[in-house]
Amino acid sequence: MLCNTPRLDKLRTARHFFSRMAKTPEERRLPKKEYEARVPELRTALVQMQVGLKAAPFPVLLVIAGEDASGKGEVVNILNAWLDPRGVETFSFHEPTDEERERPAMWRYWRSLPPRGRMGIYAGSWYTEALREDPRSPRELADFDRGLRRIAHFERLLAADGALIVKCWLQLSKDAQRARLRELEDDPRTAWRVSPEDWKSHRDHDRLARLTERLRRATSRPGAPWHVINAADPRVRNLAVGEYLLKRFRAHALAHQKIPAPVKPRRVVPLRPAGLRRLQALPLTQQLSGEVYEEKRDKWLGRLNHLVRAAAERRRSIVWVFEGWDAAGKGGAIRRLTDAIDARDYRVIPVAKPTDEEKLHHYLWRFWRHVPRAGMVTIYDRSWYGRLLVERIEGFCREDEWRRAFAEISDFESQLTEHGIIVLKFWLHISKDEQLRRFRDREDTHYKNHKINAEDWRNRRQWRAYEAAVGDMLALTGGPSAPWHLVPSNNKRHARLQIIKTSCQQIAAALEG
Amino acid sequence: MLCNTPRLDKLRTARHFFSRMAKTPEERRLPKKEYEARVPELRTALVQMQVGLKAAPFPVLLVIAGEDASGKGEVVNILNAWLDPRGVETFSFHEPTDEERERPAMWRYWRSLPPRGRMGIYAGSWYTEALREDPRSPRELADFDRGLRRIAHFERLLAADGALIVKCWLQLSKDAQRARLRELEDDPRTAWRVSPEDWKSHRDHDRLARLTERLRRATSRPGAPWHVINAADPRVRNLAVGEYLLKRFRAHALAHQKIPAPVKPRRVVPLRPAGLRRLQALPLTQQLSGEVYEEKRDKWLGRLNHLVRAAAERRRSIVWVFEGWDAAGKGGAIRRLTDAIDARDYRVIPVAKPTDEEKLHHYLWRFWRHVPRAGMVTIYDRSWYGRLLVERIEGFCREDEWRRAFAEISDFESQLTEHGIIVLKFWLHISKDEQLRRFRDREDTHYKNHKINAEDWRNRRQWRAYEAAVGDMLALTGGPSAPWHLVPSNNKRHARLQIIKTSCQQIAAALEG
Repeated sequence: MLCNTPRLDKLRTARHFFSRMAKTPEERRLPKKEYEARVPELRTALVQMQVGLKAAPFPVLLVIAGEDASGKGEVVNILNAWLDPRGVETFSFHEPTDEERERPAMWRYWRSLPPRGRMGIYAGSWYTEALREDPRSPRELADFDRGLRRIAHFERLLAADGALIVKCWLQLSKDAQRARLRELEDDPRTAWRVSPEDWKSHRDHDRLARLTERLRRATSRPGAPWHVINAADPRVRNLAVGEYLLKRFRAHALAHQKIPAPVKPRRVVPLRPAGLRRLQALPLTQQLSGEVYEEKRDKWLGRLNHLVRAAAERRRSIVWVFEGWDAAGKGGAIRRLTDAIDARDYRVIPVAKPTDEEKLHHYLWRFWRHVPRAGMVTIYDRSWYGRLLVERIEGFCREDEWRRAFAEISDFESQLTEHGIIVLKFWLHISKDEQLRRFRDREDTHYKNHKINAEDWRNRRQWRAYEAAVGDMLALTGGPSAPWHLVPSNNKRHARLQIIKTSCQQIAAALEG
Repeated sequence: MLCNTPRLDKLRTARHFFSRMAKTPEERRLPKKEYEARVPELRTALVQMQVGLKAAPFPVLLVIAGEDASGKGEVVNILNAWLDPRGVETFSFHEPTDEERERPAMWRYWRSLPPRGRMGIYAGSWYTEALREDPRSPRELADFDRGLRRIAHFERLLAADGALIVKCWLQLSKDAQRARLRELEDDPRTAWRVSPEDWKSHRDHDRLARLTERLRRATSRPGAPWHVINAADPRVRNLAVGEYLLKRFRAHALAHQKIPAPVKPRRVVPLRPAGLRRLQALPLTQQLSGEVYEEKRDKWLGRLNHLVRAAAERRRSIVWVFEGWDAAGKGGAIRRLTDAIDARDYRVIPVAKPTDEEKLHHYLWRFWRHVPRAGMVTIYDRSWYGRLLVERIEGFCREDEWRRAFAEISDFESQLTEHGIIVLKFWLHISKDEQLRRFRDREDTHYKNHKINAEDWRNRRQWRAYEAAVGDMLALTGGPSAPWHLVPSNNKRHARLQIIKTSCQQIAAALEG
């Protein structure tokens, strides 16, 4: 239906086989000669665009969507013939694979994003999926609108990161669609492309046109506007898509040619002092004897083991996020947790500097990569919150970037929780004095030496800045479905026990809910 | 069966819950006290090992396999409890996902390989899969042996690249197995772990023991030997695995601590002069008029379009490999091909310098990544043959490495073709004079400027070395299932037409065969 083009039973021809079709009688057509005179210049310009793109600090996403029989597949093929295929990849999304079905809906699009300097053409995209259900009832339409908001958010997030998003909607009037379908049917080489469903949706043209207008209205935003192209004349259509892409690219490249000046880190002023106050008010004087600890720990670990298995049986995944001061005990806490989980079911992702493949993508891309399959566990040892902590403080990203990240991160997490993933986030809190004791201990103890370096001492000098940033993080990112758990960690036993207990309670609540 | 441990219905407990089980009555056991006295030292040593591993130029693969009820899952969990979970990942392979089923059998293992400096624990591995069929008839046993040869090759290839491969076989006598199964059944907490299949395979213990001995004999090779551990006493078993891992790691780290001296490229002397002669004898004087070319091209592209679709309908994938001199016309040839293929069905992979993630793996890893799904097409613009060309000539790898690559590459390609993938390899050949003309043309033509740089001129000065290396490649890597097609390319039209024609013929033959 609509922009959905199933595999193997729809057009699979190429440039050489296009020219023979498509002569809608009712409209004035661009003469072939004129078309052929204009194409070479456009092709040259497009290839030049690709050369420029290679060094550009952004990716290009070209979405080709539109009515049935408007020639989306033809346009995608023509573009690929015009472009240098080495710099572009075409994506179409068929039935999700089982690896995709087991993750949040947008995971498959995240894994298909082109890196900076490259281009992805989407023949069938997130819009295909949005329209697949063909919503009719008010309830279905409300779901539809919710899906569109998710898409708008996805595109806004990419556009804000610099991506050039070019979306073409190929439009056909009801008459033009009828003429086009007849034309395809009349030619024995293309008759197989017309199915009874096509005629059915043709009869429903006006309703579907209203639906797709609703779709375009909801998702046409600055940075990702829809461009509607009359597809009645294939030649006009092809040129229009190519020229629009060029125009957008040129404007975008111009706007992005100035390399932003390096960000000078400024004093970190809390946006929400309430968060900072909550952090500073946390009592850190807990004590716990070794004996009581071991007894309780074993009891709770037994419970955790049981709960993680129960979650897996229900195909619910768990994501643990560990953040905290250097030397606050994240590693040790993770070890205690994993003691209770079958090693075949979890992965620990230590988050350090991004790899160069990761640097070529949106900062969330490298976390999307590791979202667990159904019933599995991912433990992030540091996480996407780096954006709001080290990147904010050290000036690794611009102010508008980290400010945006509060909403981006909340949305990311809500995609996880809406998919049924249980998200458990812990901030391990210690006092500045306690950190000093632990740093010295690490320096003095031979086998802990590797755990301390100059960077740790540098971060320590920024304690106040981190405090402010952590406070903002606590105040602005913990929704009810993925709240922050503050863990007083001056006493390691107390911290570990609290983490295990809280995890149990949260998982139990999620499984009951 | 055997080392296959299905999910969710087998042991999922952790360290804390192990100590209560496993008291086979008939053997002398390591007293608990003694065990607990020895564990801390071992743990410290293992964590120290991990610290050393971080900077090591190799990955560690630890395979835990063995009889039913020998405690493979327990061992894996114990190791994870002893190790720092941040440096290790545990893999177990259940039913292949559909993305895995659509690729050659080893693809799922390639995608799970740890990078250098990290460790993978395989709880259930390629050996699980090999034993799953439970071969009995001579024919099944022959298949079994063939699978084992493939595994031995896989491990040899990784070991040759520096990987430390540690394989533990947990052995139980028939009596010990019976005692262990009874013990598990008697405890209500573990009774669910014993299935009728376990008893069935217990009754078949002696035959299965012969089978697994055959497996170990076929796959115990230098660099990847089997280490058999008596699993009757769980404590002895745990210590044995940990200590063996340590011992192997220490020896390996010692052998790999010397950074090999940078390779000084030597004069390239052909290994097989026949290949060089074949290359030099290729006539390059073909002519083809524009008119004849266009007519034939369109005819053959039509045929190609049809054949690629026919292949996709039968779920056969196609891999094209393009190699050739700089400026030989690889890009142009790829564009002509892709004109005839639906853009949604192919990917072009331009092969340049590896990314840093790729550098941390075996050189074939980055090509395995892009092996197409069933019915899809991957076009490699340069390929794994870089190992035999630029890497050999420029000294980016050692002589033993490129020498080994002839066999490694042939094996890689035979895995593709045995899976039903159609592999089409082209060498685009031009004369040295023709290259000079094209280089100058690129320099003189504004919009071709980006296609030429100092490296191209540098490569050109190495013409004779490349010639010799190409000759060896032609002589030593083109098996009957993935032969090399030499394409005289001084005349671009002639070259493109030949590529399209040859592709058609090869695909047609593959579909008939």
